[in-house]
Amino acid sequence: MINVAILGFGVVGSGTAEVIEKNKDVIKEKTGAELCIKHILDLRDFPGSPFEKLITHDFNDIINDGEVDIVVEAMGGAHPAYDFSKAALEAGKHVVTSNKLVVAQFGTELLETAEKNGVRYLFEASVGGGIPIIKPMMSDLAQNRIDSVSGILNGTTNYILTQMSENGAEFSDALKEAQAKGYAEADPTSDIEGHDAARKIVILAALAYGKLISPDAIYCEGITKIDSKDVALAEKLGGHSIKLIGHAEKAGDKILAFVAPRLIPAANPLHDVSDVFNGILVSCDMLGDAMFYGRGAGKLPTASAVVSDVIDIAVKSEMKAASAKWEDASDSDIAPLADYVCAHYFRISGCEKCMAKVFESVERSVTENGETAFITKPISEAEAVAKEKAFAENGTKVLARIRVL
Amino acid sequence: MINVAILGFGVVGSGTAEVIEKNKDVIKEKTGAELCIKHILDLRDFPGSPFEKLITHDFNDIINDGEVDIVVEAMGGAHPAYDFSKAALEAGKHVVTSNKLVVAQFGTELLETAEKNGVRYLFEASVGGGIPIIKPMMSDLAQNRIDSVSGILNGTTNYILTQMSENGAEFSDALKEAQAKGYAEADPTSDIEGHDAARKIVILAALAYGKLISPDAIYCEGITKIDSKDVALAEKLGGHSIKLIGHAEKAGDKILAFVAPRLIPAANPLHDVSDVFNGILVSCDMLGDAMFYGRGAGKLPTASAVVSDVIDIAVKSEMKAASAKWEDASDSDIAPLADYVCAHYFRISGCEKCMAKVFESVERSVTENGETAFITKPISEAEAVAKEKAFAENGTKVLARIRVL
Repeated sequence: MINVAILGFGVVGSGTAEVIEKNKDVIKEKTGAELCIKHILDLRDFPGSPFEKLITHDFNDIINDGEVDIVVEAMGGAHPAYDFSKAALEAGKHVVTSNKLVVAQFGTELLETAEKNGVRYLFEASVGGGIPIIKPMMSDLAQNRIDSVSGILNGTTNYILTQMSENGAEFSDALKEAQAKGYAEADPTSDIEGHDAARKIVILAALAYGKLISPDAIYCEGITKIDSKDVALAEKLGGHSIKLIGHAEKAGDKILAFVAPRLIPAANPLHDVSDVFNGILVSCDMLGDAMFYGRGAGKLPTASAVVSDVIDIAVKSEMKAASAKWEDASDSDIAPLADYVCAHYFRISGCEKCMAKVFESVERSVTENGETAFITKPISEAEAVAKEKAFAENGTKVLARIRVL
Repeated sequence: MINVAILGFGVVGSGTAEVIEKNKDVIKEKTGAELCIKHILDLRDFPGSPFEKLITHDFNDIINDGEVDIVVEAMGGAHPAYDFSKAALEAGKHVVTSNKLVVAQFGTELLETAEKNGVRYLFEASVGGGIPIIKPMMSDLAQNRIDSVSGILNGTTNYILTQMSENGAEFSDALKEAQAKGYAEADPTSDIEGHDAARKIVILAALAYGKLISPDAIYCEGITKIDSKDVALAEKLGGHSIKLIGHAEKAGDKILAFVAPRLIPAANPLHDVSDVFNGILVSCDMLGDAMFYGRGAGKLPTASAVVSDVIDIAVKSEMKAASAKWEDASDSDIAPLADYVCAHYFRISGCEKCMAKVFESVERSVTENGETAFITKPISEAEAVAKEKAFAENGTKVLARIRVL
């Protein structure tokens, strides 16, 4: 049993509690780790919350509790988040954080403090929200020299740029819409001026190159000056999209890092990372390019990353190595394809009339050279097979059937 | 020091030796692991190879060497790969493999054998080539219930489908081209009929749902019947691409898994995974969708994944937990942006003549409403700033400058 204390019961803190409680069983099954939330620190009370009884207003309740193994810092801001993290590490407790500001500013010191005290300081959730990127860079890619890291690291600006691209919106209108949808804060400066992305790229650069650069020391250009004209022209000039990119690379024995809007060529996997999604492209000497993609923000995705760190500590502090756990499937474990439901693409001989004899309505269709191709509403595999039969009975040839993902 | 023996000095085996030797320093720096290749088993000799002296023709040299900690099985085929793996595990040696055939067929037994003998059986390279996917599914995503896994798992078929899409090639011609380029084997059956993808999706399904289904027990449809007509029509019907997808999901208490070509909607991140690249989309209850993208095959990418398993064993067998290691950067560690070279997008007032006064030649340009937008050849930031100045001196306004990724 590993006891966890959560500092801050806001979005990430409450999400962390939710992930641990809801998926207790799957976590135990997959990793053997048994997690228990013991305290939650917040200035507020949460009457009616299932976690109400765990709330404390006094950090000492946590730091002095010898049973607390891991402190999750989800307070945000530099202070007291940094101070509490340092105190927890010095008290021999592992610390997990989602706080990129603290990692980017005090990461070196806190990692040293952790090492001195034989505990760990982990921060998977500080970059890329729920996307596994910190631990993959620390371990899965450790046999590679990193040539460069380029990332769409901020969901707010990516949402705004996607709106500008898809709807021709101007920056100011797209920002207002993002604020209305809750994707941008009332004061959006940190996102739109690139400061948030700057904190994240210096963390990735530190993992890649072993030196933590202050976010204030790198060139940082936001997206406020992007004109919808440029978005349209970039598309015209060979199909580029425009994204806010945090970039880091080795330049001789120095590190080059900066944040700026960039034109992304169509062939680059970052080209289509849209809306609030994040994508991080890591170019490695052996592996080549690898991209990690997913939800870069949000309550449960970010909490998912926090809990992945908690599990990592839990598993390793019991000195167990992760192992795949499975058994051979029996026939009764295997679902028949007949029940699988998805839209289907058909190509048939004949016109739309032939199609209409078998499908009352479809999503879209096109007739060319005496053949009709169409996409159905979602139907089961069994229905799709029955429809094929119906076509055959009407003398219509089914020339192709392909399932839609 | 961790001693490694490699079984099979073909593409993956020799790549593994190369990654370990070339990146010894970076591996040690990032993880503390010191790797040493002690034996290489192959039927052939390799006169002139830097690894010549390590070659043995007798598996007993490896199994009886108490100093060998990890056996890398890179032989391919079911036998003797399975037999040697089992013997190595029983002799108390960790086994790392790239052999999806053995994992899909004998994985349950070999994992049990490993557990019984207190060692590990790892197979990151068996799915997705160099892409970190197995270990992320085992650990980074362990706090999630997996709703589904959909993957472009075979580079050969993805290359063929990309050719059919981009050049309107017919399947047979695209296959010939893939063979000419070395992306498809002389006998391409296993790839184009989907058997290779079937082995990989059952491995991913086992990690997600705890049951290993025999690849022979799932529906498997290849791409041989895909007509270039369908590729074109799928694009017309709302911008779908066609990809060979291995799919697995939970269907009640059963597992549904199959391989088939699928239409991919434009908004799906798998839509643009092209050429020999692989992409694996994992839908999770907490994190949402995450995609892992990269080179799904090839000597060094696959070897990179093999070595990531070797490092994982090395680090954990010394009971060290992975920790970020960095120090604060000093000013002299930071490269100036002025030296950074990339293509630039400019939008200027005036016609192409104004552009030509400052740029002798550009990659592409377009003039609209008295403004010219263009993309330059790669130039340094310093040159770009000088060009801005030159425009100003000519009375031309620079309305936008955006760097190209």
